[in-house]
Amino acid sequence: MTATAPKQPEAAVRIVALGGLGAIGRNMTTFEYQGRILIVDCGVLFPEEEQPGVDLILPDFAYLEDRWDDIDALVLTHGHEDHIGAVPYLLRSRKDIPIYGSRLTLALLEAKLREHRIKADLREVAAGDSATAGPFGVEFFAVTHSIPDALAVALRVGGQLLVHTGDFKLDQLPLDGRVTDLPGLARLGDEGIDLLLIDSTNAEVPGYLASERDIASVLDQVFANAKGRVIVASFASHIHRVQQVLDAAATHSRRAAFVGRSMVRNMNVARDLGYLEVPGGMLVKSDALPDLPDDQAVLVCTGSQGEPMAVLSRIANRDHAIEVGPGDTIVLASSLIPGNENSVNRVINGLIRQGAAVVHQGNANVHVSGHASAGELLTFYNILRPHNVMPVHGEWRHLWANAALAKQTGVAEDHIVMAENGTVIDLEAGRAAVVGQVPIGFIYVDGSSVGDITEAELKDRRILGDEGFISIFVVVDVFQKKVVAGPEILQRGFGRDDEIFREIRPQLVTALDEALSQGVEQQQQLQQIVRRTVGRWVSRSHRRRPMIVPVVVEV
Amino acid sequence: MTATAPKQPEAAVRIVALGGLGAIGRNMTTFEYQGRILIVDCGVLFPEEEQPGVDLILPDFAYLEDRWDDIDALVLTHGHEDHIGAVPYLLRSRKDIPIYGSRLTLALLEAKLREHRIKADLREVAAGDSATAGPFGVEFFAVTHSIPDALAVALRVGGQLLVHTGDFKLDQLPLDGRVTDLPGLARLGDEGIDLLLIDSTNAEVPGYLASERDIASVLDQVFANAKGRVIVASFASHIHRVQQVLDAAATHSRRAAFVGRSMVRNMNVARDLGYLEVPGGMLVKSDALPDLPDDQAVLVCTGSQGEPMAVLSRIANRDHAIEVGPGDTIVLASSLIPGNENSVNRVINGLIRQGAAVVHQGNANVHVSGHASAGELLTFYNILRPHNVMPVHGEWRHLWANAALAKQTGVAEDHIVMAENGTVIDLEAGRAAVVGQVPIGFIYVDGSSVGDITEAELKDRRILGDEGFISIFVVVDVFQKKVVAGPEILQRGFGRDDEIFREIRPQLVTALDEALSQGVEQQQQLQQIVRRTVGRWVSRSHRRRPMIVPVVVEV
Repeated sequence: MTATAPKQPEAAVRIVALGGLGAIGRNMTTFEYQGRILIVDCGVLFPEEEQPGVDLILPDFAYLEDRWDDIDALVLTHGHEDHIGAVPYLLRSRKDIPIYGSRLTLALLEAKLREHRIKADLREVAAGDSATAGPFGVEFFAVTHSIPDALAVALRVGGQLLVHTGDFKLDQLPLDGRVTDLPGLARLGDEGIDLLLIDSTNAEVPGYLASERDIASVLDQVFANAKGRVIVASFASHIHRVQQVLDAAATHSRRAAFVGRSMVRNMNVARDLGYLEVPGGMLVKSDALPDLPDDQAVLVCTGSQGEPMAVLSRIANRDHAIEVGPGDTIVLASSLIPGNENSVNRVINGLIRQGAAVVHQGNANVHVSGHASAGELLTFYNILRPHNVMPVHGEWRHLWANAALAKQTGVAEDHIVMAENGTVIDLEAGRAAVVGQVPIGFIYVDGSSVGDITEAELKDRRILGDEGFISIFVVVDVFQKKVVAGPEILQRGFGRDDEIFREIRPQLVTALDEALSQGVEQQQQLQQIVRRTVGRWVSRSHRRRPMIVPVVVEV
Repeated sequence: MTATAPKQPEAAVRIVALGGLGAIGRNMTTFEYQGRILIVDCGVLFPEEEQPGVDLILPDFAYLEDRWDDIDALVLTHGHEDHIGAVPYLLRSRKDIPIYGSRLTLALLEAKLREHRIKADLREVAAGDSATAGPFGVEFFAVTHSIPDALAVALRVGGQLLVHTGDFKLDQLPLDGRVTDLPGLARLGDEGIDLLLIDSTNAEVPGYLASERDIASVLDQVFANAKGRVIVASFASHIHRVQQVLDAAATHSRRAAFVGRSMVRNMNVARDLGYLEVPGGMLVKSDALPDLPDDQAVLVCTGSQGEPMAVLSRIANRDHAIEVGPGDTIVLASSLIPGNENSVNRVINGLIRQGAAVVHQGNANVHVSGHASAGELLTFYNILRPHNVMPVHGEWRHLWANAALAKQTGVAEDHIVMAENGTVIDLEAGRAAVVGQVPIGFIYVDGSSVGDITEAELKDRRILGDEGFISIFVVVDVFQKKVVAGPEILQRGFGRDDEIFREIRPQLVTALDEALSQGVEQQQQLQQIVRRTVGRWVSRSHRRRPMIVPVVVEV
C-alpha cells in the first residue's frame, strides 16, 4: 500500500470511501472512471465523548478538491442522517451536483436543504428505474431497512458491474410489502457482479432478524395492559414503527399526538407522501392531550437515545409540561445505539422513579434492527455471488465479521477488500485490489464553524474538561526590570479555593524579577517561566495537571 | 417524609444508606441503636462522564460528623472496591474503628491501607463466626459472588433480626465448593427476619445464572482452537476466573504470566492465602514471555473494561511492548460494566485490526455475573421469608425490579422500603418505615483533594470541555480613565484562529473607555462589561457559548 494514490489505469474503476469505514456513520463512497466521478451517499457521523462539544463530523471532502466539476452524480440510498446529513456541506463547494434518490429520501433532504437555504438539483428515482450519469449507468433496487423507500444501487461502468447495498436487511414481510428485490439482484448475479459493497453493521449478529411486523403483537400487549397514558419514543425517521404505534392505538381506541419538532415534521412529510396512514380522527395536537382521559391518550415522541434536549429526557428529568406517574407506560421502541447506554439508562431510571412502567428492548421485543444479520448476509451472498466483496458501513470488527461471512459462502479471500476510509481500490478486469491510501481527516462541525476544530483543539478541551485551568496574568516593566501588576491568578474547573494561590504568588514574582534582572525580556520566555513555576507547584502540592495559561504583558 | 431525621425512638433500629442506592457503587449502610452505630461496607463509586476528571466518588460521611466515637464496628462483606475502597478515607476521621471482614477481604484492604500508610484495627472473621460490637450481635454467612470469601451479615440488636446480603448469588457449584449458606439463612428465616437488605444489581435479569464452572468448557475450547498466544483480560479481583484460565493453560500445556500491577499484586495475595492454586512450574515472569513459543504462552492481564492505562488497552493501541497479530486470541473474560461500552469497543476494534481474534461476552459464554438474577432472588426470598425488605445495591430501576420480586413472593407491599441514599428508616416492632431524609452529597476525590470539587466546578469543567474558553486581560488606569494595556485575548478549546479577535478588540476598548469616563471604577463591573461585550459577539458571530473569563487589572 503506497502513501498516496497511483495514477488510475484507463480501464479501472476506482473506489475510495471518504467516510463510513472504521466507524458507523458519515457514509460516502466515490466511484471514478476515466476522470468522471459518481458519489454514493453523503452522511454525517455523531461525535463520541473524545470529541467534546462537536456537533457533527463530516466525510473529508478534501479528496474532491479541484475536481468538483468532474462529479456526474450524487446517489442517495435512503434518508437517514448518516447517509444524507452532509449533503448541505458538500453543496457549498458545488451547488448543482445532480442528486438522485427516492421520493421519501429527497423529501427529507429537501427539508434539510431548506434549513440551509439551499436549492439543489434533485432527481427522483424509484426502485426499478435506471439513469445515466456521465459514463455511469445506474440502476435502483428496492431494499428493506428501518426507513421506507431505501434503495440499493447497481453501477455499470467501463464494462464492469458494481453493486452498493446501502443499508439493508431482508425483511420478508415488511409493513409496506416492498421487499428487497432479490430476484432483480439475482439477475445481476447471473450476469456477474464484479464488486459488491455491502452493509456490515450486523455482521456479528448470528441468525435472522424478526420482521418489523412481529412488533405489532408486542405493542398490542403493551397497549392492552396500559392503565394510563402510553408514551412511545422512537426515531423520527422510523415511519413504519410509528405506523404500528398508530395501528395499536386505533385497536385500543386511543388517540395520538406527535410531540417534538423532528417527529412532527417527518410525520407530516410521511403522511403527505402516503408513507404513513393515519386512521381518521386519530391525531390530536399535543396541547389538546391533557383534555383526553389518560387511558385514551398516546404520545409519540423522540428521545429514545436519551438525547438531553429531546422530549423524553425532559419528561424523565421533570423538565417538561408532560408529567408521568404510576399507571403510565413508556415504550422505547428503538435500538440502543452504542455509546448512548448511560443517557438511556438515566432516562429509564428517571421515569421509573416517577412511578411509570418502562418497556424497552431489554425487557420486550419492541425493536428489530434495520441491518441484515449474519444469516441474511449469507443468504445475500449466495444469491448475488459477487466476484469481489468490499465490506462497508461498520467498525473494523463489523467489516471483519462480514468478510468472514463472504469467505464462508465461497468468495476467495484475496477477492475480499478490507478498506479504511481513504483506501484506494482499483477494480480492473474483474479484480479489485488496494493500490494506495489517501489521507482522510475528521471534519468537525461546531456551531457555525466547519473544519476549524483540530485534534489539538479537542485535546485542549479534554484537558480543560478533566482538569480545568489556572491562568496567570502579570504586567512587567522591562525598563524597571520588575513585575508592576499582578500576578492575578484565577482558576476554573480546577476546584480549589483561590486562597491556595497565596502560596505561589510571591514565588512567581521572585522568579520573574530574577529573570528580568538577568535580561530576559521576551514575552514567550517570561510566560514559560510562569508556566513552569505554577506547573511544578500544582503537580507537587495537588497531584493534578490543569492547563496552565500564562499571560505576561509588558508596559 | 420529613426533610431531616426525627428523634430515634428508644426501641427502634435506624438504617441510613450513605451510598449504594440510585447508583451502583459506594456501598455504605449505617445501623443505629440507642446511640451506637454499626456500618456495613464503605466503598467507592467510579465517576461517569458528567463527572469529568474525578478519580473516585465517596459515600457522604457528613452524617457521621461528631459521632465518630459512637461507631462500634465497620463490617465488610467482601473485597471489591465498591465495598472497601472508601475505608482509607473513613479512617481519616477515626483511625481505630474496629473493622471486621474475611481473610481475603482484609488482605485486600491491608494492601490498600498500606498505600495510604494507615494501620487499622482489623478483625478477621469467617463464615459461621459471630461477634459482638456494642449492642450489635453480628453473625457471618458464606455467600457466593465474583470474589472468594464473601459474607452476608446478620445483625441482632434490640430484639430484632436484620440480614444484609452484601453482593451475592446462588452458584450451586462454585469453584471452591463454598456455597451460599442457605440452610443457615433458612434458620434465621425460621426465627423471623425483621428486615432483609438485599442486592438488587441483577433483579431485572430473568431466570438463573450459569455456574462459574460452566466457563471452563468454553475456555477449554478457546485454548484448543488458539494457534498463537492466548491473552485473557479479567478483573484483578476475580480469582476464580483466573484459576480457570490457569487450569485451561495447564490442560493445553501452556505457561502463564500475570501482567499489570494490580493483577500481579492480587494474585500474589490470593496465592499466599491459598485462594489461588498455581500448577507447579506454570508461572513465568512477563519479561520471559517472548522466550516462549506463541502456542505455549498465556497472558493474564487487566483492561477488560477498556481502561485507557491498562495493559490490554495499550496493546490494542499499539502502545505496549506486547504486540499481537494474526493467530493470537484475546479473551475478555468479564462483564461489560455499563458506561464502558465505547472504551471496550475501541479495544476490540484495535485488536481485530491487528489481526487478532477476540472472544468476549458477546460471542462466547466467557463470563457469568456475580449477582443473583431474578430467579435466584425469588428463591432467596422464599427461603428467608423476610417480614420487611429493603432493596439495596442498584439504580432505581434495579431497586424497583427487586421490590417487585419481593412482592411476588408474598412480602406485603407496605413492608417493602424503597429508599434513596440518606433516607432514614426506623425498624420497630417488626415494621420498617421511612421516617425522614438527610442530605447526601457526592464527595469527589480528585488528585490529592477530597471533597473540594463541587457541582459548580463540574459544571465549569463540562462547559470548558465542550466549548473551551476565551480570556481577556486588560489593564486600566482609573485616574487617566482609560485602557493602558491589552486587551490581550486568548482562547483554548474554542477552536478559532486568534485572528478573529482582531474584530472585537477595538469594541472592547471603546466600551471600557466609555465606562471609565462615566466613572465606573469597580473591577467587578468592568469585568462584567468585558464579559457581556465578548459573550454577545461570540454568540452572534460564532453561535457558540465558550466560558468568558475577563480580568481587569487597575494600575
